[in-house]
Amino acid sequence: MSVLENLQEFLRIPSISTSPDHVADCRRAAEWVRQFLLDAGLAKTFLIDAPGRQPLVYSESLEAPGKPTLLLYGHYDVQPPDPLELWTSPPFEPSIRGDDIFARGACDDKGQTLILLEALKRFGGRLPVNVKVLIEGEEEANGQHLEAYVPEHRQALKADAALICDTEMFAPGLPTLCTGLRGGVFGELHVEGAAQDLHSGVYGGAAPNPLEAIAQIIAALKGVDGVIRIPGFYDEVRAPAEKELAAWKTLPFDEAEYLRREVGSIALSGEAGYSVLERTWARPTLEVHGIVGGFVNQGFKTVIPAKAHAKISCRLVPDQDPERIVALLRAAIEKATPRGIVSRFEVFGMSPACTVDPSHPILRAAAAALAETFGRPAVYMRSGGSIPVVGLFQRELGIPSVLMGFGLPDDNLHAPNEKFHLPNLYKGIEAVEGFLRVLTKGCERDTDSVFRRK
Amino acid sequence: MSVLENLQEFLRIPSISTSPDHVADCRRAAEWVRQFLLDAGLAKTFLIDAPGRQPLVYSESLEAPGKPTLLLYGHYDVQPPDPLELWTSPPFEPSIRGDDIFARGACDDKGQTLILLEALKRFGGRLPVNVKVLIEGEEEANGQHLEAYVPEHRQALKADAALICDTEMFAPGLPTLCTGLRGGVFGELHVEGAAQDLHSGVYGGAAPNPLEAIAQIIAALKGVDGVIRIPGFYDEVRAPAEKELAAWKTLPFDEAEYLRREVGSIALSGEAGYSVLERTWARPTLEVHGIVGGFVNQGFKTVIPAKAHAKISCRLVPDQDPERIVALLRAAIEKATPRGIVSRFEVFGMSPACTVDPSHPILRAAAAALAETFGRPAVYMRSGGSIPVVGLFQRELGIPSVLMGFGLPDDNLHAPNEKFHLPNLYKGIEAVEGFLRVLTKGCERDTDSVFRRK
Repeated sequence: MSVLENLQEFLRIPSISTSPDHVADCRRAAEWVRQFLLDAGLAKTFLIDAPGRQPLVYSESLEAPGKPTLLLYGHYDVQPPDPLELWTSPPFEPSIRGDDIFARGACDDKGQTLILLEALKRFGGRLPVNVKVLIEGEEEANGQHLEAYVPEHRQALKADAALICDTEMFAPGLPTLCTGLRGGVFGELHVEGAAQDLHSGVYGGAAPNPLEAIAQIIAALKGVDGVIRIPGFYDEVRAPAEKELAAWKTLPFDEAEYLRREVGSIALSGEAGYSVLERTWARPTLEVHGIVGGFVNQGFKTVIPAKAHAKISCRLVPDQDPERIVALLRAAIEKATPRGIVSRFEVFGMSPACTVDPSHPILRAAAAALAETFGRPAVYMRSGGSIPVVGLFQRELGIPSVLMGFGLPDDNLHAPNEKFHLPNLYKGIEAVEGFLRVLTKGCERDTDSVFRRK
Repeated sequence: MSVLENLQEFLRIPSISTSPDHVADCRRAAEWVRQFLLDAGLAKTFLIDAPGRQPLVYSESLEAPGKPTLLLYGHYDVQPPDPLELWTSPPFEPSIRGDDIFARGACDDKGQTLILLEALKRFGGRLPVNVKVLIEGEEEANGQHLEAYVPEHRQALKADAALICDTEMFAPGLPTLCTGLRGGVFGELHVEGAAQDLHSGVYGGAAPNPLEAIAQIIAALKGVDGVIRIPGFYDEVRAPAEKELAAWKTLPFDEAEYLRREVGSIALSGEAGYSVLERTWARPTLEVHGIVGGFVNQGFKTVIPAKAHAKISCRLVPDQDPERIVALLRAAIEKATPRGIVSRFEVFGMSPACTVDPSHPILRAAAAALAETFGRPAVYMRSGGSIPVVGLFQRELGIPSVLMGFGLPDDNLHAPNEKFHLPNLYKGIEAVEGFLRVLTKGCERDTDSVFRRK
């Protein structure tokens, strides 16, 4: 099958890892990856299971003695597609319009995982470097399987560096390496008032209202100025180096265009005194992703609900410690909880922020491969998102990650009408193939050096 | 059929007026009432239709010349039953446990409407006073049908007073007349940020978040102290008379018991310096009934939603003007709306507060009938809820309403496990029958006097 047919087949599997209804689909996606790697000539390919977890796909080819070992990472799971009604074409029926393919996971991360797989396939089983492949199925969930697996298999996963295709290019045609990711704390705020739903006419004025408590707590955590009001929240924040900030200023970024084309609100929000790139790459934030509670159907019901819930995350930057942030967040929630209400913050997951040193030889090799493929020098950006595996590999395996991404800023990640730009699919395969070749030439000695976070 | 069988049959009809899925059920409930009245000997009974509206049931018996005319009001529609999982027995399969019957509408207002119907039936078509009956099907929705019908039929609906069974007794066994109802403004706050849902990692810190805006707006409208922060909101509030406040203090109210048995939260909330009865009967408030927006399913999705909505109501007291409150609310929302967000408050319905003068002869007749039935004097309370029809009858027909209610404080109105206390059903029928008889004796002359709101 062609690259495009492979991608379409992969995208048709609704492998939503956060939903218990899609466990079988996640396994189908894992099986699909396994079969692809077997067909690509990687004979040692298998699934790794754990109770209640989505399978990992592992594969290796260690037939290049004396050459570096690269750990390739991607994920076959996708975000839920809601709200469904905003999709132009169904999320799991890939649709090609113009040079883009639209589907949930088109970019994040099936399209980019396929770049890794297709690049490996090009070598017909005779890889120029040693390769270990680890494709997970819980990146959009809590990543618990990988998080438990990696520390227990440090020796087996030993490598010189990781290659991750799960980030974006700063602009179309501009080859990009990502050198920093925000970390995160993800969880849910639960508040409870009365023992059961009450009539707001009869009890309004005397019974505590959990929805109002949720609102008051959120308003206490974050000001309308975008500043997080959690005491101590910013204490550990490390500003980017002057050189890095200076480099960002040279990137082709137009705030008016960004507002108009990417965001589409009447104005941007956020902390005063920081550029958009600083606010989204180098400043921590707090976001509310969903509030549940009370009567939400059509019509009206004058109820004071007994309970309410809010899904909340904080994005973290170096050197914020997620555990400490959770403690500060919980203390702030406790303090903001109004009389009559019981509140609790449940943590779903957390990860620290990561940075990668652009002067590391493996990054230089990646930059060289990108430059050759795209015909222009690579630029360095950070990403506001979180890829917890980068921190995991750094911490547990002591290796740096090359974040070579081929998404575009308007690829609608986690949103309706997610897409992937087809030229990037093909260029991506070429760049990864080139990267493997470059590694054989000039980086043998240097890749032993282990990158450590400052 | 027995009274109980009639009630069970009536309760089995899921006449949820706010839901477009239950239009046919509302009509079935209306037909049920019509048939009951025909069987009870009121030959002039018919449905009144209007496009897109739930039917009104109208009936009359004007065969008591020289006697007063009473307008009997009830409603056959009910609140939605959500959350379904909290019901012990299905909401539309009436279940008798102990001396109570559990079902949606058991008390509000099918049980109490049936009290009126069964009382009429007792006279076998030969009523001692003139009676007009108006049973609506949009009390839990927007009441638009009745609101349009009454002003256009002032002559046809001419009466000396209205009798409404849709309130509660202050305590079990304590016959109660309600002399005041809060009014209300009911609507939905809509906020919009970005043109579509965005990834919180990529855009968090720069894109406005409608859920946070909703939270910040709500927190700006109402403080954790329960005080409404809308400028001018309390300007027109008229305090109850000293005499009324003094009477409330003699009512058998135990705040600790109320907290423990009725509310069940760890503490009550609300404005300092006012008793619970004042806070729920004589102070205005603002409540949030539901917030919709973002990802609310199981799992986690790091989305910044494009839109969010909150269902909000204000309960109003004399002499607050609903139109003015809407204007103040809108201005406060506008002012609290953070940068980057567009907000709008949509009004679903509004009604002013009402009070009834306990010294009015018709109230005295009602008190006499209650005292005879229950063997103890009636007490006077107010209700925190809103029955817009009281204001409508007062304004359009110039008549006072006797609010003779038989619900109990723990009847779970608008909540799961709504119930009606069966002894109150039977006592209620007796009291209404007695009231009609009392009216023939001593109130002929006085009932011409028209109550007007001070």
